[in-house]
Amino acid sequence: MSLPFASRDDRKAVESALAFAPKFDENGLIVAIATDHVTNEVLMVAYMNEESLRKTLELGEAVYFSRSRQEIWHKGATSGHVQKVKEIKTDCDQDALVLKVEQIGSGCCHAGYPSCFYRAVPLESDVTATDGDYPLTQQSEQSYDPDAVYKK
Amino acid sequence: MSLPFASRDDRKAVESALAFAPKFDENGLIVAIATDHVTNEVLMVAYMNEESLRKTLELGEAVYFSRSRQEIWHKGATSGHVQKVKEIKTDCDQDALVLKVEQIGSGCCHAGYPSCFYRAVPLESDVTATDGDYPLTQQSEQSYDPDAVYKK
Repeated sequence: MSLPFASRDDRKAVESALAFAPKFDENGLIVAIATDHVTNEVLMVAYMNEESLRKTLELGEAVYFSRSRQEIWHKGATSGHVQKVKEIKTDCDQDALVLKVEQIGSGCCHAGYPSCFYRAVPLESDVTATDGDYPLTQQSEQSYDPDAVYKK
Repeated sequence: MSLPFASRDDRKAVESALAFAPKFDENGLIVAIATDHVTNEVLMVAYMNEESLRKTLELGEAVYFSRSRQEIWHKGATSGHVQKVKEIKTDCDQDALVLKVEQIGSGCCHAGYPSCFYRAVPLESDVTATDGDYPLTQQSEQSYDPDAVYKK
């Protein structure tokens, strides 16, 4: 049951009305943030065009638009590591989406981690001139071998 | 102590090395997602240019770049409702940031809500043709009067 998106003509209504009026940017994309439905930790940040958003709503699984490949990207379609959508939220001006998902498999990140956000950035109060640049802190270990999953 | 950002020349190093090499897009921006440092709920999605990212690292408070006003935006600088940064994370390709923040005051959203994500979007299995469009579900109440905070 695919329905039209609501008009964005009335800015106040976009913020306060209970009608879905997503805003796609000049590239036809809206940012979509996948979070773990239990811990709320951010798993990854990706983008959707209208077609991938509609497929997400239809399937109940996250479907993105790959900016590098310029194509629809049903996350996990080949590996089986799909993201089951438990809830979708939109923000005040409806130009961003948060997906609460159940990540199937051992992680969402192509680099082998449970989350793409596996490194922390120090504040300036935590660095010294001898560091040369901002040293990141590794926060989680790889949960699977990406070569085995993606290259075999 | 402002330090240089690391080179992005080696794509593999960007993913695996412990050096901060943020990617700014064609508009000079990187997406920054503010989450509550206790619940991990996403509070808002905004953008930073290099100057605002450096100010964030320096101050330990979230400083964004307002795309609508095209200016540096120290969140809460006038209202006092700043976001104290507890942690910053970057993702595999370092083109997105997650900030874990303590939101000072009663909310982060200019529309008066604790979080900008106060409405849920239904999946297609939850709508019917008679809905006309996708009816959103209100998930939280306003926690303050935005007119009183922003217009007095």
